[in-house]
Amino acid sequence: MSDRTSLEQLLQAIAQGEVSPQAGLEKLQYLSFQPLEDFAKIDHQRQWRTGFPEVIWSQGKTPSQIIKIMNAMRSHGSPLIMTTRLEPEIADLIALEVPNLRYYPMAKIGAIGQLEQKYQGKISILTAGTADLSVAQEAAITAELCGFEVERLWDVGVAGIHRLLSNRHIIDNADVLIVVAGMEGALPSVVAGMANGPVIAVPTSIGYGTSFGGVAPLLTMLNSCATGIGVVNIDNGFGAAMLAGQILRLANRLKS
Amino acid sequence: MSDRTSLEQLLQAIAQGEVSPQAGLEKLQYLSFQPLEDFAKIDHQRQWRTGFPEVIWSQGKTPSQIIKIMNAMRSHGSPLIMTTRLEPEIADLIALEVPNLRYYPMAKIGAIGQLEQKYQGKISILTAGTADLSVAQEAAITAELCGFEVERLWDVGVAGIHRLLSNRHIIDNADVLIVVAGMEGALPSVVAGMANGPVIAVPTSIGYGTSFGGVAPLLTMLNSCATGIGVVNIDNGFGAAMLAGQILRLANRLKS
Amino acid sequence: MSDRTSLEQLLQAIAQGEVSPQAGLEKLQYLSFQPLEDFAKIDHQRQWRTGFPEVIWSQGKTPSQIIKIMNAMRSHGSPLIMTTRLEPEIADLIALEVPNLRYYPMAKIGAIGQLEQKYQGKISILTAGTADLSVAQEAAITAELCGFEVERLWDVGVAGIHRLLSNRHIIDNADVLIVVAGMEGALPSVVAGMANGPVIAVPTSIGYGTSFGGVAPLLTMLNSCATGIGVVNIDNGFGAAMLAGQILRLANRLKS
Amino acid sequence: MSDRTSLEQLLQAIAQGEVSPQAGLEKLQYLSFQPLEDFAKIDHQRQWRTGFPEVIWSQGKTPSQIIKIMNAMRSHGSPLIMTTRLEPEIADLIALEVPNLRYYPMAKIGAIGQLEQKYQGKISILTAGTADLSVAQEAAITAELCGFEVERLWDVGVAGIHRLLSNRHIIDNADVLIVVAGMEGALPSVVAGMANGPVIAVPTSIGYGTSFGGVAPLLTMLNSCATGIGVVNIDNGFGAAMLAGQILRLANRLKS
Amino acid sequence: MSDRTSLEQLLQAIAQGEVSPQAGLEKLQYLSFQPLEDFAKIDHQRQWRTGFPEVIWSQGKTPSQIIKIMNAMRSHGSPLIMTTRLEPEIADLIALEVPNLRYYPMAKIGAIGQLEQKYQGKISILTAGTADLSVAQEAAITAELCGFEVERLWDVGVAGIHRLLSNRHIIDNADVLIVVAGMEGALPSVVAGMANGPVIAVPTSIGYGTSFGGVAPLLTMLNSCATGIGVVNIDNGFGAAMLAGQILRLANRLKS
Amino acid sequence: MSDRTSLEQLLQAIAQGEVSPQAGLEKLQYLSFQPLEDFAKIDHQRQWRTGFPEVIWSQGKTPSQIIKIMNAMRSHGSPLIMTTRLEPEIADLIALEVPNLRYYPMAKIGAIGQLEQKYQGKISILTAGTADLSVAQEAAITAELCGFEVERLWDVGVAGIHRLLSNRHIIDNADVLIVVAGMEGALPSVVAGMANGPVIAVPTSIGYGTSFGGVAPLLTMLNSCATGIGVVNIDNGFGAAMLAGQILRLANRLKS
Amino acid sequence: MSDRTSLEQLLQAIAQGEVSPQAGLEKLQYLSFQPLEDFAKIDHQRQWRTGFPEVIWSQGKTPSQIIKIMNAMRSHGSPLIMTTRLEPEIADLIALEVPNLRYYPMAKIGAIGQLEQKYQGKISILTAGTADLSVAQEAAITAELCGFEVERLWDVGVAGIHRLLSNRHIIDNADVLIVVAGMEGALPSVVAGMANGPVIAVPTSIGYGTSFGGVAPLLTMLNSCATGIGVVNIDNGFGAAMLAGQILRLANRLKS
Amino acid sequence: MSDRTSLEQLLQAIAQGEVSPQAGLEKLQYLSFQPLEDFAKIDHQRQWRTGFPEVIWSQGKTPSQIIKIMNAMRSHGSPLIMTTRLEPEIADLIALEVPNLRYYPMAKIGAIGQLEQKYQGKISILTAGTADLSVAQEAAITAELCGFEVERLWDVGVAGIHRLLSNRHIIDNADVLIVVAGMEGALPSVVAGMANGPVIAVPTSIGYGTSFGGVAPLLTMLNSCATGIGVVNIDNGFGAAMLAGQILRLANRLKS
Repeated sequence: MSDRTSLEQLLQAIAQGEVSPQAGLEKLQYLSFQPLEDFAKIDHQRQWRTGFPEVIWSQGKTPSQIIKIMNAMRSHGSPLIMTTRLEPEIADLIALEVPNLRYYPMAKIGAIGQLEQKYQGKISILTAGTADLSVAQEAAITAELCGFEVERLWDVGVAGIHRLLSNRHIIDNADVLIVVAGMEGALPSVVAGMANGPVIAVPTSIGYGTSFGGVAPLLTMLNSCATGIGVVNIDNGFGAAMLAGQILRLANRLKS
Repeated sequence: MSDRTSLEQLLQAIAQGEVSPQAGLEKLQYLSFQPLEDFAKIDHQRQWRTGFPEVIWSQGKTPSQIIKIMNAMRSHGSPLIMTTRLEPEIADLIALEVPNLRYYPMAKIGAIGQLEQKYQGKISILTAGTADLSVAQEAAITAELCGFEVERLWDVGVAGIHRLLSNRHIIDNADVLIVVAGMEGALPSVVAGMANGPVIAVPTSIGYGTSFGGVAPLLTMLNSCATGIGVVNIDNGFGAAMLAGQILRLANRLKS
Repeated sequence: MSDRTSLEQLLQAIAQGEVSPQAGLEKLQYLSFQPLEDFAKIDHQRQWRTGFPEVIWSQGKTPSQIIKIMNAMRSHGSPLIMTTRLEPEIADLIALEVPNLRYYPMAKIGAIGQLEQKYQGKISILTAGTADLSVAQEAAITAELCGFEVERLWDVGVAGIHRLLSNRHIIDNADVLIVVAGMEGALPSVVAGMANGPVIAVPTSIGYGTSFGGVAPLLTMLNSCATGIGVVNIDNGFGAAMLAGQILRLANRLKS
Repeated sequence: MSDRTSLEQLLQAIAQGEVSPQAGLEKLQYLSFQPLEDFAKIDHQRQWRTGFPEVIWSQGKTPSQIIKIMNAMRSHGSPLIMTTRLEPEIADLIALEVPNLRYYPMAKIGAIGQLEQKYQGKISILTAGTADLSVAQEAAITAELCGFEVERLWDVGVAGIHRLLSNRHIIDNADVLIVVAGMEGALPSVVAGMANGPVIAVPTSIGYGTSFGGVAPLLTMLNSCATGIGVVNIDNGFGAAMLAGQILRLANRLKS
Repeated sequence: MSDRTSLEQLLQAIAQGEVSPQAGLEKLQYLSFQPLEDFAKIDHQRQWRTGFPEVIWSQGKTPSQIIKIMNAMRSHGSPLIMTTRLEPEIADLIALEVPNLRYYPMAKIGAIGQLEQKYQGKISILTAGTADLSVAQEAAITAELCGFEVERLWDVGVAGIHRLLSNRHIIDNADVLIVVAGMEGALPSVVAGMANGPVIAVPTSIGYGTSFGGVAPLLTMLNSCATGIGVVNIDNGFGAAMLAGQILRLANRLKS
Repeated sequence: MSDRTSLEQLLQAIAQGEVSPQAGLEKLQYLSFQPLEDFAKIDHQRQWRTGFPEVIWSQGKTPSQIIKIMNAMRSHGSPLIMTTRLEPEIADLIALEVPNLRYYPMAKIGAIGQLEQKYQGKISILTAGTADLSVAQEAAITAELCGFEVERLWDVGVAGIHRLLSNRHIIDNADVLIVVAGMEGALPSVVAGMANGPVIAVPTSIGYGTSFGGVAPLLTMLNSCATGIGVVNIDNGFGAAMLAGQILRLANRLKS
Repeated sequence: MSDRTSLEQLLQAIAQGEVSPQAGLEKLQYLSFQPLEDFAKIDHQRQWRTGFPEVIWSQGKTPSQIIKIMNAMRSHGSPLIMTTRLEPEIADLIALEVPNLRYYPMAKIGAIGQLEQKYQGKISILTAGTADLSVAQEAAITAELCGFEVERLWDVGVAGIHRLLSNRHIIDNADVLIVVAGMEGALPSVVAGMANGPVIAVPTSIGYGTSFGGVAPLLTMLNSCATGIGVVNIDNGFGAAMLAGQILRLANRLKS
Repeated sequence: MSDRTSLEQLLQAIAQGEVSPQAGLEKLQYLSFQPLEDFAKIDHQRQWRTGFPEVIWSQGKTPSQIIKIMNAMRSHGSPLIMTTRLEPEIADLIALEVPNLRYYPMAKIGAIGQLEQKYQGKISILTAGTADLSVAQEAAITAELCGFEVERLWDVGVAGIHRLLSNRHIIDNADVLIVVAGMEGALPSVVAGMANGPVIAVPTSIGYGTSFGGVAPLLTMLNSCATGIGVVNIDNGFGAAMLAGQILRLANRLKS
């Protein structure tokens, strides 16, 4: 059911006197989000609207705020409550108050529940180096929690191109590819030139000097002369997984 | 037929003495590309490998080089020969030598032929302002030449949010969205928060002062707090279309 | 009449059966903007919503597009049709098709009509140097066309602080100040330390070398240790006038 | 009483022999500021000149310097003594020496006294996310201490545009708006397109990667295609409140 | 006679009834500058205040504005009327209206008159390469017009350090040194390590690629590990000469 | 034996039925690298391919990952196992598990074994200041571990050019020079103008303010008007040694 | 005695057989600097060459290195041994080994001895704010240790221009001015417009957000439309003092 | 014959009375360079010192200056007179005055004469795309004029990695490699991972948007995780050739 349908139904109900105009205004608000004390407005509608539930970005929030949002989502029956960029010591604090919290230390993700796996297709995640694992794992865990199948291929950077070529079948058989690279960030260009599907490029802040915290690989990826590449923010493994998820959701929707 | 299959068949043929090792080496090269005098190597395999034929980027090439590449592709039987960033005066020069060249002035694309329309799904292209049309048309014409259905929605920038909200059904019904915006580049964030599918964000160099030739909207798009957004280079309408095309190709492939 | 009132009245009309839900949807769209061929959506509501009519930014638009937008606004009865960043040669082309167009060469503004002067208070515009006049005039003409009183004080940069101090009464008596400066851009800091009202700072691209096209004065203005300063984009005289106008409109609204 | 009046009266007094020229020189200095040991010159005149008392910026000052300035202002009878960017541990040290100090931890403000509420009009403060609260509270507390009415609306970022639209009446009824946003910083553009008054945009350093410590939202705000926006420095909630205050002061002055 | 003396005399005159307070105010303004139509305020006092007359920066001024300022200065009896960054074609236009204008094409300076040579000491100007001559000549001609002795040493860049070492006596005997360099801008560091007096470093925009229009040599000069170096803006030969002039004026003043 | 020879032999073996095509594919992979659990792929072939063994970059790797890679290389019989950017406290942890680890604290290198010294020619390493020693030692130790002769010359920056000139014989007799400099980074320009061989320039992050973490010397080095200079990343002493090593290896290869 | 004279005498001695050529080479080296173990080359000649002794920059040096350099300079009889950027805890360590070390905590300078005061003229140092004191004190202490008279004027930033104007006599009577400012850095422009001598501008890293660690005031100072300003690196109070010293030394040298 | 030998011989001659000290001083200067009017100092010694003659960089020089330098070099008997970055129209002007000038339009090089081919080893030059040819040809022609053998391989960018792999034997057999790439600049990383010798990476300004005139490929190259790469300035084909030449000269020198 799309939002527009829902809006039309509400207007119909108003037209038929089933809902008063004033109540209609209220309803529109209630459907949309839940104000939480004075610091947050939880967007319960998001899963219905964009396919995935709201995810809590931990940076800049107090442990107490995170706990309150999680509990509100739990009360609302969210099948997946997930928080990213969660430092271990904060995770420990939260776990005291929020039962059943699982913590993934390399990915820095905390989660309760999981979306059921219902989409055809697979998300293949590659890294250029071992040091990019944290970002790649953020993407992988996010995708798995959201119900997608994930394939991992670590440490296949372009300085030893044979490592990549030996795994060519993985690229050949991939549906959506997430390619994670720091330093010079050249891996997505090479992969996209070989791949048969969309490539999501994730620059990481791994490097030093003129890496400028990930700007070097970001520019490399934006300037790729290979086509079929979409780029996300530096270290944004989560965002890459969400984009990959949207792509597979579309594929499954078009199919049906 | 994937590359790996092709490689295995070649190795099989060598094993069975049908092809000598030396000839195998040659074959591998021959399959791959066609050297053109001393200035280019046309990648005829690209369509077979990535779904789309090689496209000629006109900038930095002489008219004579472009003509030679086009003719080589024509001889090779390419169903679509396409060149981007083609200035009108260069297009005129080329048209003298290359018959049947169509020129799209707003998109600055020259083309011969067209891929047949065979994919389900639609690419919806939005612009924030009238001044972004050139980039948006590069995306639209590219997508249409490659056999995709395109829907256009121009001038729905966030400073008059009602223009966007009134066209909400277009966003609701979109499969893949390409959102083109200069100046502050906020449109993709708003669209991605409403959309039910992947969003490809294209920053444009439209603006002045601190727009820094498109850096401002690029940063906006990379930092979006909405999810499901992949970003391409500034003014890269072509790249956005190719990524959208890869996404719909995947959807159609998964389906079958 | 605010938008919300208007929306409530529409919902009331739907509730009372005076307007069908479907017609209500149409109405909402119609009220908002007028699609112009396929390249623009004129926001006729803007004056009603934000106090000022939509203004046409000429850059990136063809003369023919500008003419069509102007004519559509004229048909709609807009009391002021105004276009900024209009180069003289484009203005000449447009004047052939659009009667009564006035052109202000230093400000690069084209206009038809004028809003009536109805607001109490004055906008005082200062420049640091003679070379900043073009930007300052864009602000001044915009403000006058929108019905505000303007006072001009040119060439009072901080390298000869006595020129400013001698005109201290102008600063003392100002309501809203627009301070335009290139090069080091220090004038707004000094003025804001003396002024008794809000200061709008406009960096200009006047300068060379490390001016970086106006970045130097922009940073100066953003880092001012004086308070009461709001900054607009480099060379954005128009935006400064609109902000000054909003401030005086508020003052007049609060008063009534 | 303006400075100019005051200067004229002094010159009159000199002309009439009531004040000697040498004493006049002294007087001019004495009126203006109070030198404090060798490290500061307190600008007691500032409230009389610009409407607000001098505020102590804590960064880069030793606790002992802050205490001495506070005590000097107290001796001078300042109705409001306020210090910003005050870390909790410094606040504790100061509280030992300065009685009646109130500390606002989220806003990092320390204060003694308060200006009386005498201005008509309200300052409405919006944030895009929960993580922007610290900056927004700096603005809110500053405004309240200076005698203004404040309305708060947190967590209405553009990725869930319905959260903003449901609160449209707050924007419709606002006098001056302060809009605080990190990451992509798109909220001020959307708000200014809907608002009926001036908008002060505050970029925050909330974000990661290409946020560049707030540069991304700053550029978004400076490049807004909506009008009526003035921008302040990154994280400068205090400055936003001072500008909003100047705007309401002007409104009240014009009125009288 | 310092400004302070002059101010005291004026106050004395007011005290003694010789000058009325109102006339005193006028006098203060009159002494300071001459408003020219509505576009400029000529600072005739500048020579008296800072030792050098006001100089006209041609960029961003119309020929007609330059002519008016020159004529006003001529009427006022300025011994030197000088304009910098004057393109040849503008110089030709001005020469038609302003008699006795001399034009220095390499330095892009136009001038009438000359200050008499009265200062002891010499300004030695070095360039790293032939391509830096235009900026170096702007410095040299400015200094000569202002009455200083100039010594020139061109093309002694550090890539052939023996060219510099062979001219060591010039550095040994220099009073003030102006060192002009583009590309890597290393010359001032080497010179300052050898010199016995202050060095003024002028980065030029000569170079390509990562020269970034002079940013590379600017950074080199600011980061010099040699001491005794003051840096001016990129290509600012004029500013270097004025600083050198101030230094020699001080030396001569202290001497007397 | 080059890779190509090896590939041809493998194809020959397949052609002669000695190796099955499937086994050939496996062999190609096995030759190339050793997958280590799920986090790394050790490139044992690298020494055979590029002359030097794979080196472990410690940043972004856990101690446990480093230990596993070291042990795998030891099992494989690597004559040199080396890790860079190894902090002392991590080195201590690793030493508990990895016998015979030597640690070089200034260079932050950990190593087991050493390549035999077999190349003619010497690598001369110069620094501008004492503070650049850490980077210079990373280069020196790396080169020595890889079997090269190293000559060191510290603290000969250009601000005291005589310190460099007095050591001119070192430059005259050098084969490959590595020149390490922070702050303004001018030393490589001067050295390359005097040297008779290739110069490798290493910018360091030593400095403050506009050094921007090494960007200033990097730009200086890239813009050098002296020729024969190749630049590596900021603080990349290791990379400089590897490039110097490749140059001497080439010299020795050509010779034979 | 200049270097050239000294060189000529040496050549004379060689010509007369008093010194052998080989010994001459040695002598040239010995005159110039003293190698200290393998980490430093002390430039004892520097005072003789440039007027001031070599100063030890503490950053990037170990306490033990600093102690060795200090002791070597003491043995050599240096009248002033001085080290900058010395953190208090390092100062404590050094004081244990180096008797008579004085430490200036605000300036972060450690010193033994002092140059005698022999130059006419005074260095006046101004700061815009209290937070700039650390940098200003580095300049002031350096100048005093090198034998110059210093006048201090703190906290006279442009946001309260009357604080500066009230101290106008200080500017009028100054010989060389050092003006220290962070945030917007506008003070040097205003001062240079009033001053009668050279101005040395020192940007500080005081500020936040778009201050970019001092880049904002640096650009302001480089772009100043006032003349007679030389700029030094961000926070480089030491360099400003050395330049001021060179200027006064020149003045005294010319005089004699 | 090294410089040091030459210096010692001169000192010997002075010691033996064959040369007077004064004449020695003159000789030192005369050996070094030839002053040309007042704009240049030709470094005739450069070939003797660094192996290659001085090359004239045309940018920023007038045609007349170039002609004079060429003629002076011709008179001095230079075997190769070469000028880079020479625009065709300037080349035409120069050819009128300088007989025997050859012009290479793609490389923008003008030359008279050629160094004899005497070095063993070959310089292999690769480009990523056709648009990089101009820079690559500057490198190739320079190398050939200086007496080196050159191998060219154009258009083997990483987006079609098979084009590179098919030419693997060229990389395997290369001595020194120059790899030229714009856009994302990833080719040098891949090549250096395969190559058996030093790689010189040349970023080009080919690209658009976030290419930033070559900054993107420059950063890619500096951050390469492959080793054995030295980077030169953007578009600096000449510099790459000179570095390659120094490397081969060293190889030949060591050999003998």
